[in-house]
Formats: sequence, C-alpha cells, structure tokens
Amino acid sequence: MKKYDVIIIGGGPSGIITGVTAKKQNPEKSFLLIKEEEKGLVPCGIPYIFHDLEDVSKNAMGPKPFVDTGGEVLVDRVNNVNFDTKILATDSGQEFSYDKLVFATGSTPTIPKFIKGYDLEGVETVKKSYNYIDQLMKKTDSAKNIVVIGAGFIGVEIAEQLAKHDNKTVSLIEMEKHCLFRAFSVDFASKADVEVKEVGVNLYTETKVEEILGSDGKVSGVKLSNGKRIDADIVISSIGYNPRTKLAKKAGLEINSRGMIRVDNYQRTGKKDVYAVGDCSQTIGFITGRTDGIMLASTATAEARVLGYNLFNIKLLRNFTGTLSVFSTEINKKAFASTGAIEQVAIEANIDYVIGQFKDVDRHPATIADTYPLEVKLVANPENGEVIGCELFGGKGVGEMINIVSLAIQKHVTIYEFISFQFGTHPLLTTAPTKYVLVKAAEMAIAQIKKRN
Amino acid sequence: MKKYDVIIIGGGPSGIITGVTAKKQNPEKSFLLIKEEEKGLVPCGIPYIFHDLEDVSKNAMGPKPFVDTGGEVLVDRVNNVNFDTKILATDSGQEFSYDKLVFATGSTPTIPKFIKGYDLEGVETVKKSYNYIDQLMKKTDSAKNIVVIGAGFIGVEIAEQLAKHDNKTVSLIEMEKHCLFRAFSVDFASKADVEVKEVGVNLYTETKVEEILGSDGKVSGVKLSNGKRIDADIVISSIGYNPRTKLAKKAGLEINSRGMIRVDNYQRTGKKDVYAVGDCSQTIGFITGRTDGIMLASTATAEARVLGYNLFNIKLLRNFTGTLSVFSTEINKKAFASTGAIEQVAIEANIDYVIGQFKDVDRHPATIADTYPLEVKLVANPENGEVIGCELFGGKGVGEMINIVSLAIQKHVTIYEFISFQFGTHPLLTTAPTKYVLVKAAEMAIAQIKKRN
Repeated sequence: MKKYDVIIIGGGPSGIITGVTAKKQNPEKSFLLIKEEEKGLVPCGIPYIFHDLEDVSKNAMGPKPFVDTGGEVLVDRVNNVNFDTKILATDSGQEFSYDKLVFATGSTPTIPKFIKGYDLEGVETVKKSYNYIDQLMKKTDSAKNIVVIGAGFIGVEIAEQLAKHDNKTVSLIEMEKHCLFRAFSVDFASKADVEVKEVGVNLYTETKVEEILGSDGKVSGVKLSNGKRIDADIVISSIGYNPRTKLAKKAGLEINSRGMIRVDNYQRTGKKDVYAVGDCSQTIGFITGRTDGIMLASTATAEARVLGYNLFNIKLLRNFTGTLSVFSTEINKKAFASTGAIEQVAIEANIDYVIGQFKDVDRHPATIADTYPLEVKLVANPENGEVIGCELFGGKGVGEMINIVSLAIQKHVTIYEFISFQFGTHPLLTTAPTKYVLVKAAEMAIAQIKKRN
Repeated sequence: MKKYDVIIIGGGPSGIITGVTAKKQNPEKSFLLIKEEEKGLVPCGIPYIFHDLEDVSKNAMGPKPFVDTGGEVLVDRVNNVNFDTKILATDSGQEFSYDKLVFATGSTPTIPKFIKGYDLEGVETVKKSYNYIDQLMKKTDSAKNIVVIGAGFIGVEIAEQLAKHDNKTVSLIEMEKHCLFRAFSVDFASKADVEVKEVGVNLYTETKVEEILGSDGKVSGVKLSNGKRIDADIVISSIGYNPRTKLAKKAGLEINSRGMIRVDNYQRTGKKDVYAVGDCSQTIGFITGRTDGIMLASTATAEARVLGYNLFNIKLLRNFTGTLSVFSTEINKKAFASTGAIEQVAIEANIDYVIGQFKDVDRHPATIADTYPLEVKLVANPENGEVIGCELFGGKGVGEMINIVSLAIQKHVTIYEFISFQFGTHPLLTTAPTKYVLVKAAEMAIAQIKKRN
C-alpha cells in the first residue's frame, strides 16, 4: 500500500490551490490529489461556454500547476476513509495511507425534486463536470426553446449567454421579485432585470415553476404559478448547490446545519490531521458572524492558501477570519458587484446600518468615449463608521473596484477614513478625482449618521 | 468692504473641493472663491483635448458644485493679502475681508529657460488654462511637425494623442533612459516606450534638446544632444510644473525647499486662519517621510476634503498622514499604474525592500474575448512585510486595481495578510481566483524574504 504525506480529495480550485501552496511550502513531502474526472472546468467560466467561449475545451482547468510542483494526480473515486488507520479506499480497489487528509469535495447542483416532472429527460442542472457540460452544450445547441429555473448568478449568466444565439427563445423563471436578489438590493437588482430583458431573455419574476411538463418521459414545457405554459426542449435548473459531504459524513466528520463540514479558522476538522476546504467546508460570515453557506471559488482559494501555508504547522496567522463573499457579474455589458452586508443582509441579520449612495460615470470628463454610468451604494455601521457592505453598478472597472471595498471591510476601514483616502484617477480609466464615487458615498453615509444623531 | 467667513484663492480641483466640502459642513458661513479665468479645465483631461475629446469645451470644469452649495465666485486676481488686517486686494481694485483664507493657487508649467531658443514663438507649455489650451489646440491642428520635450505623464499623453492624427510627425524627447521613469521601473517603463512608439511617436530617450532652432523669431526645429536636427512647427515643453506661491510668499507664508507652502497635516500654514491646499502646498511622502513635490489632482482633492471638514474645528482626524501618489495612464490602449515606493524610489530613499512579481491575464479563462496581459510588481518591507509600492501593467481594470494597493499601503497591509485576502473575481471582469495577481505577487515576495533569511 502506497503512503503519502498528504492526500487531497477533489480537483477543483480549492483542492488544486491547497496542493500547490502546501507542496511549495513543503517540497520534501509527498502529495497525491484524487479527482473523479480526468478533465476539470473553471467553475465560474461555465456559463460562458454556452456562447462566448463556444466550446467546453476553452474553459478547461486541470491540476497542471500542482503537478508542476511535483504533486501526483490519480483519477479515481474515494469511497471510504478510516481516520483511525489513516487509510482510504477507492473505486478502482486501491488503498492509500496518508499523514494529512484534505477534503476538497466541492458541491453538486440541487435537484429540484419538489417540482413535479423534475426527473423527465431534458431536465438538466449546471453540474461542474467537463463531460456533463460538454453534453449539455450540445443539447442546447439543437434546442429552440429553453427554460432556466432560478435567477441567481449562474441562472442569469446562462440565460444571457443562451439568449445571444439568434435561434433560441430563452425564459428565466425566478420566484423572488428580482434577479440576483441575494446579492443586490431592489434598486440594483431591478437594473439587472432590465439588462436581462434587454439581451432578449423572457424574464418571469415572482413566479414559480409549478410543474415540468413532458410526454413520453421527455420534457416539453413548464407550467408556471401564473397559469402560463411555456414550451421547452430543455429545462435547466440552477436553484443552488449542495456541499458534497457524503464521504466525510460516512467517515465521521461533523457536519453543520448547512450540510457543510465543520472547520476552524485553519480549515481543521474535529479529527486530527483531517482538513476541509472550499464549497464542502463551513463558512462563518465575516460581518454577520453566523454560519453562512457561501460557495465561491474566490473564498475557496483564500481558504486553500491559508490551509496550504499551515498544513504542517501554523506559520502564517489567518488575518481575515470569517468569510466575506464578493460577487461580480456582467449582464449585457453592464457590470454588477457586491460584497458584505448589503441592505437586506443587514436587515435580516439585525445589523444597524446607514447607506451612502452616489452616482457618476466611470471616466472623466464624461465626454470620454467609452464612458459607463457608475453607481455605488455603501453600507456602514452608524456606531463607528466601519464599512460593512457595498453594491456597485457600471462598466468593467467595477470588477476590481469592489475589491477596494472588500479590502476595506476586511481591514475594518471606516467611512471617516475614506475622506482622506488617496486614490489614483485617470480620464481614460476611472471616475474624476473630485468625485471619486467611493469617497463621495462615504461622505453621504457620514451625512446620514449626522442626521440620525 | 465685503466680508466673507471663508475666501478661497484658486478654482482648480483643490479650491472647488475645499469649498464644496467646507460649505456643506458649515452652511451658515459665507464663502467666496476667487479665480483668475472664467472657464476652467479638468487638469488630467488636458492631453485628451488634442485628439479623443476633439474640443476644449468637452474638458471644461467649473465651480458649479460649489455654487450649488451656496458659495459665491468672483473672476479676478488677488494681488495682495494682509494677514494682520485679514484683508485682500484684487486686480479689479476690490478689497475683501475674510475670517479664514485658503490658498489653492495651483501650479504653472516650468519654462525651459535653460534651453537656448525657449522664448521663440511656437514654443509652448501645457498651461492649465482654458483659453491657452484652446489656442494651443488650434495651433497643433495646423502643425505638421511637433516636438514634445519631456516624457513624463503629460508629455507622453499629449504625444500619443497628437500622433493619432494621420497628418502629423510627433517626436518626444526624454533625457532619461525611458518614458515615465519617475513612476515606473525599467521593465515597466520600457513597455511604455514600446507603446509610445507603436502609436507612431518618434521617441528619443537618453537625449537632450540642446537648442530650439528658429528663424524670424519663430520656432523651426530642435537640435538634439545626439547631433540630430528635427523640424518643428511647434515645440511643446512638458518638463514639469512649479507651485504658484508668489502671492503666498509676498504675504509672508513659509515656503519649503520645493517652493511649496509649508502646511501641517490639516493644511494649516504657520499663520493663524490661513490654509494651503493642492499643488501649491507641501507634501510629505507617505512611505519616504521626506518633503516631496507631488502635484496630483487625486491627492489634492484628498487634502481638500480633510481641510473642508476641519476648516472651523478639527472634527475628522486625518487618518492617512503623508502623501501617497497614485499614478495611472493609458498608452495605445495599454494601462500603466503605480503607487508608493517603487523600486527606484526605495533605492533612492534608502528603504530596504523585496519584490514580488507575477504575470497573468486580466480575464479567466484566458480564452475570453477582450483579454489583456496583466503584470504586477509589488514592493514590500522585508522586516514586517508591509506593502510599500506597486506597479501594474494591463487593461483598463488596472485603473481601479492600483487603488486596492493604495488602500493597502495606507492601511499598512502586509503581504502575509494578502494570503488570506478575500477578493471577487469574474470571468469577464478579472483575473482567475486561483491566481489573483496581487495575492500571487504577495506569495512571491514572501518567498523572496525567506530566501534572504
């Protein structure tokens, strides 16, 4: 039986980055990464396969960076782990012994079992599998009518991409009032609605799919809660993901209320030498302090770096404890981004807050050619002025601008500090120095606090 | 004689923002802003008048935001100030009394008096004046051969814009080894050279203008230190700016070694109730701790906000003391940005440093359509890992990405903290979460520190 110092189960971003980081820190140790499928995908790139990238191979992601550091990779499935003997078994009948074991088992799409007809042929999900998505893409290519259920990020992005094909009728069904309702407040989410429709998607909000209709076991359409029936050759369900923790549970790891493997700030599970990272592992909200269910490649890779540095001994303290989600997307060439406790999160988690809002354009003067509107909604703690959340809408610059705020939140920067924040501006690249939108929004939030006092 | 609570001398960004901010904080106070010319310009937009904007009016900036808050504006020139009587006099023969006085007198282009022929007709500078630039633009429109002296930001940007016209031969003369040598180290500055040439500018580096040639008192060309003569209908000198402090000096304010009005962290001069802000006021380097000569609209507006809040009493502590310059520009559709102590600044100021460098692309996967290369050079303190400087090269996203680093520097964030930094990424907007370039550069810098120990 072969023995490795470190075995990582899972070949997504968190598994690979844990492997790369840990192997670099410990080049003398032996590493094995076990993944179930030969080829992998960039998770957030999946929607763009359906139009912009044109082919699944253009979104491939493999463990090459890990292999380059000297790690070994096995395509197989782990079906049993014994924490006492430190031995795991795989489907191919092999056994391996480990010193340190990392669960990076990811997540799988939620199956809409509560909808009648969910098991008809042609009802699909957005599974993070190369072969599955390759097949799904071919099926959508020949489909005329497509219904997407769920207008979260993946649903909106796939609907937008599919609608870019001339020959398709794409409908997007969302039971909440707006698209992207978890990441944006009403005023920003309703802009997302506009862009989704603008690109040609038939958007139904405040609407449920009551039944998926079919004949001969094959999907033919959906019946909506408003009584309407829509034809469909394919129904794509994108109603969320569940952490993949069956193996961990069976092996005896503690699972939290969200179905995620319980870990501490260094990704250690309750069992010695056993770790979990990425979508399958617990997240505690940076602002909310509660058990959240964040599944993002960006937070997963941050966890993986912390774990990679500290796998054999804690040499790099984790500085930002708690998971801060940072979302961004682009719909119809307009960018949307948010982070932290946006308005409805603050309300729901019972966090006192003030809002500072400001609108401008993302170039200066506004007469510059490729100017986009730029709008910010900053959320701050009225007690000490700490920034706790932000929404942004504008051009592509929004994708990095939100990271200024995410760093500000993680470093507990206040709106008062933003007043003397020194930032760079340029006519062709940013908003004007006289009204840099983050600073102006901070000013507005300060004015709101004064009004309250 | 009319009395105002506050009089601001100067209508550039620092004057206007001081006025807007202070008036909002003190709506009951009376404010007068005195400016010398009716119309103003967005300073950093000036180069773009020469091609992209096509007309000076598209780069106009006026005191409207200040007037909207209830401030008054007078077009006149202050020629005398008496700090004892608190009375100032203007060219039109008026006198005004003030309680608080703000010098926001800006800067004027350095005249190249050390070059023979500097006073010929057709030798121009880049004066921040609406009428002057309007005239200069008309002159360049009819010119065929243009020589620009000095490849700092303004020189490079004007040369790039002029070269976009089909009918012009534009030469850019720089005595240093590369363009933008103050803001970028050799590897980044040499990329700027490439882009400048690519757009059609004849770039002469390590070359001096020995003489500006003319006939009948009119410029006809330049003679270079390499012996070459270049024809020129217009010579534009962009070799720097001098703070405008003649009035302040005459009135008795203390002037520092860089010719700037000495001020403290709240922009207070040595005289009671007299303040200075923007280009005319002293800057102390955030990292270097020495007297610098930074003149940027972005740092000027940060100073102006601090002053505006605190003009009547200090109610908002200045959190980031010291001036952190953040530069960005775009040449031939490639963006360049830098902040803080870049390599040569660290060497020159005798600051110990390590470099962390990383290259990728600014979208993910790299097969996304509008992908640009993205390169980062992070400078950190090897003792405690604090980030002290950064250079970036890439697409437009660089314009906001540099502000993540500028905030990091101002908040004393370390490269160790960057390892657990949680940031947002998206295929169409940013680099990949697995190799977010700022985090990877931090990793490289940590590895460098380990090598040294």
